[in-house]
Amino acid sequence: MTDLTISRAEHRERKRELLEYAAEDGYDGVVLFGSLNIHYVSGMYHLPTERPVALGITDERVEAVVPRLEQEHASRDDFLIDEVTTYFEYPQDDPMEQVAEMCERLGLANGSIAVDSDGSPARNGYTGPSLSDLLSGDVGVEDYITDMRETKSDAEIELIREASVWANLGHRLLQERIEVGRRPIEVRAEVEAEAVKSMLDTLGDRYEMRSWANPMQCLFTTGDVTGLPHSMDQTTRIERGDNIVTIVKPNVGGYTTELERTMFVGEVSDEKRDYFEIMKESQDIAIEAIEPGVEYATVEEVVVDYYEEQGVAEYTQHHVGHNIGLEGHERPFLDVDQDGEIRPGELFTVEPGFYVPGLGGFRHSDTVLVTEEGTETLTYYPRDLESLIV
Amino acid sequence: MTDLTISRAEHRERKRELLEYAAEDGYDGVVLFGSLNIHYVSGMYHLPTERPVALGITDERVEAVVPRLEQEHASRDDFLIDEVTTYFEYPQDDPMEQVAEMCERLGLANGSIAVDSDGSPARNGYTGPSLSDLLSGDVGVEDYITDMRETKSDAEIELIREASVWANLGHRLLQERIEVGRRPIEVRAEVEAEAVKSMLDTLGDRYEMRSWANPMQCLFTTGDVTGLPHSMDQTTRIERGDNIVTIVKPNVGGYTTELERTMFVGEVSDEKRDYFEIMKESQDIAIEAIEPGVEYATVEEVVVDYYEEQGVAEYTQHHVGHNIGLEGHERPFLDVDQDGEIRPGELFTVEPGFYVPGLGGFRHSDTVLVTEEGTETLTYYPRDLESLIV
Repeated sequence: MTDLTISRAEHRERKRELLEYAAEDGYDGVVLFGSLNIHYVSGMYHLPTERPVALGITDERVEAVVPRLEQEHASRDDFLIDEVTTYFEYPQDDPMEQVAEMCERLGLANGSIAVDSDGSPARNGYTGPSLSDLLSGDVGVEDYITDMRETKSDAEIELIREASVWANLGHRLLQERIEVGRRPIEVRAEVEAEAVKSMLDTLGDRYEMRSWANPMQCLFTTGDVTGLPHSMDQTTRIERGDNIVTIVKPNVGGYTTELERTMFVGEVSDEKRDYFEIMKESQDIAIEAIEPGVEYATVEEVVVDYYEEQGVAEYTQHHVGHNIGLEGHERPFLDVDQDGEIRPGELFTVEPGFYVPGLGGFRHSDTVLVTEEGTETLTYYPRDLESLIV
Repeated sequence: MTDLTISRAEHRERKRELLEYAAEDGYDGVVLFGSLNIHYVSGMYHLPTERPVALGITDERVEAVVPRLEQEHASRDDFLIDEVTTYFEYPQDDPMEQVAEMCERLGLANGSIAVDSDGSPARNGYTGPSLSDLLSGDVGVEDYITDMRETKSDAEIELIREASVWANLGHRLLQERIEVGRRPIEVRAEVEAEAVKSMLDTLGDRYEMRSWANPMQCLFTTGDVTGLPHSMDQTTRIERGDNIVTIVKPNVGGYTTELERTMFVGEVSDEKRDYFEIMKESQDIAIEAIEPGVEYATVEEVVVDYYEEQGVAEYTQHHVGHNIGLEGHERPFLDVDQDGEIRPGELFTVEPGFYVPGLGGFRHSDTVLVTEEGTETLTYYPRDLESLIV
């Protein structure tokens, strides 16, 4: 039985690596306030609100400061946290004072500390002092964890592979339920209900929810608004002749994947068929361009060249793709101005596309793993036009 | 027919008020990077990603800088934006340079600008310069909009009133579907599908989605984890004898409400009945304490006094409640250390509660409007024990 979580050993390794980066820059330790950063290092997850949560990290020790309502959860044995200190509530306590006291206990208060932000984010009405206001030592804002998250471990890849399996189910159910006259949000909500039950019945008690969101996200837009890649409109009803663009993003073990397809309702005009084939070919071209050592920029360049050849470059609205993992969008990006070279262990959504006024959007997205040799596409729903007509 | 949105006139008034606060502090104009702040002033909403979005505001003019994929949407007539400038994509463009150019056009570049953050938030792998790095004038971080959002207009109150109506439906469906042996996430997903269809069929085309999330959020936890107010666990199956604590939060016109109930599956022990009645009484006491001119702190104090009398104070894990509106948690808080006095137009979740080890959580939450005379409770699902046994 495969675990659907990151092991304690891997969290220890992440901690070691983080402290190594910090030490290279002369820091004595690290304090984190970002909920995903805290999760990445310790395994502990929580609902981010106005109440500050902080993780203090040195070679010897990992301590957390949490509000009372996270105390028992943060104290779970499987998180990489040696001691949890609790304040009752914000604003009635001074959480940042407790973080400063934690720094004292960790021997960091007069030293040099790397932080992900200098104090807790101003969220949900929170305001408070910066950490540097309360300490006599140096505090430097560093982005180590975002850098570390660019390449994934084998365990992370397995979770994203598993999420990609469930993306296929979610998409199949979507395709079965799409009907003229229905609103996308209704179809989607039904599909998410059925898909999450199937996923949990299959994966069993190994599956642990790490957020309040339904772990099967299966949304789509239809008609004109497919021409707006980030349209929120899921209430316009499906009509015959529409383009549909789907976005399916299951979550397993905290990690997500991305599967998107352009579909057609009923007839497909010759013009749309042509655009579809150009889009599909551009995705093939992009995937073929990806391999270790190739520059990120190259992948967008080959797509732009092809789009210029085909006369559709004016219809593009975004670059070719982005890294994915704990978040749906992570860096690096498949973008002409992204510095650097593709590395094994990176995962990219490969989603070149374009948006034709009056016709709608044309975009597939698949999640592609970079291996030592080349790539492996983790999502596997049919990509050809005939399979995508409803 | 009532509109389910904030009018352009109200956005103009928000802009005027924002600039008045800024002028009092000596600023020439305002630049916003936070997606909710931008929405609050202009009506324009968008999916926040790594791609910066900024709004520049002076007496004469409102300009926006957006990525290509938001261009058409941001240019909609009903948003309070005079001009939209587009960069193609991040990282291939320098969005903050375009924001600096916008400041030039607005005559702010050498002046004094109030910002909600000095640059775009480091989200989804974004990094970039601060705005102050690019301008010769002064940039000051101010929190005017969070302050403005503390009291709600009549139009905002009507949207939250409407959301509260749909909370009742969502909760009724939840109660009908809760069954021994089922997982909360399955019940919830089914209910959300049915509830969102009913809401949209009823409200019709007036309803506009402003985020990708299902606008009917109807979640709950069951059994031991009800003792952890922010537990993410919705996979542990419902058992006979469980406490259930629900969280129902519909969204109408961008505004949310909160309806929460403690329920029981099958038999209810005398001990649980006693705790339930103490919790219910504490909510009455808190609501009775709320009126204009009373200190926020008083509302928590009367609850703490009552809990100490009843011997349950040791089981509390949080204060009595929080303001609510565009976000689920907003300030001010009903908290012993919240300075100030309750004002008409504020809305509070009133949710004193406690968590008994081995028995579970006891918490109702209702959304309470502060009127000139006292309060009006906007949510109206039954609160008594007999109505809440499934």
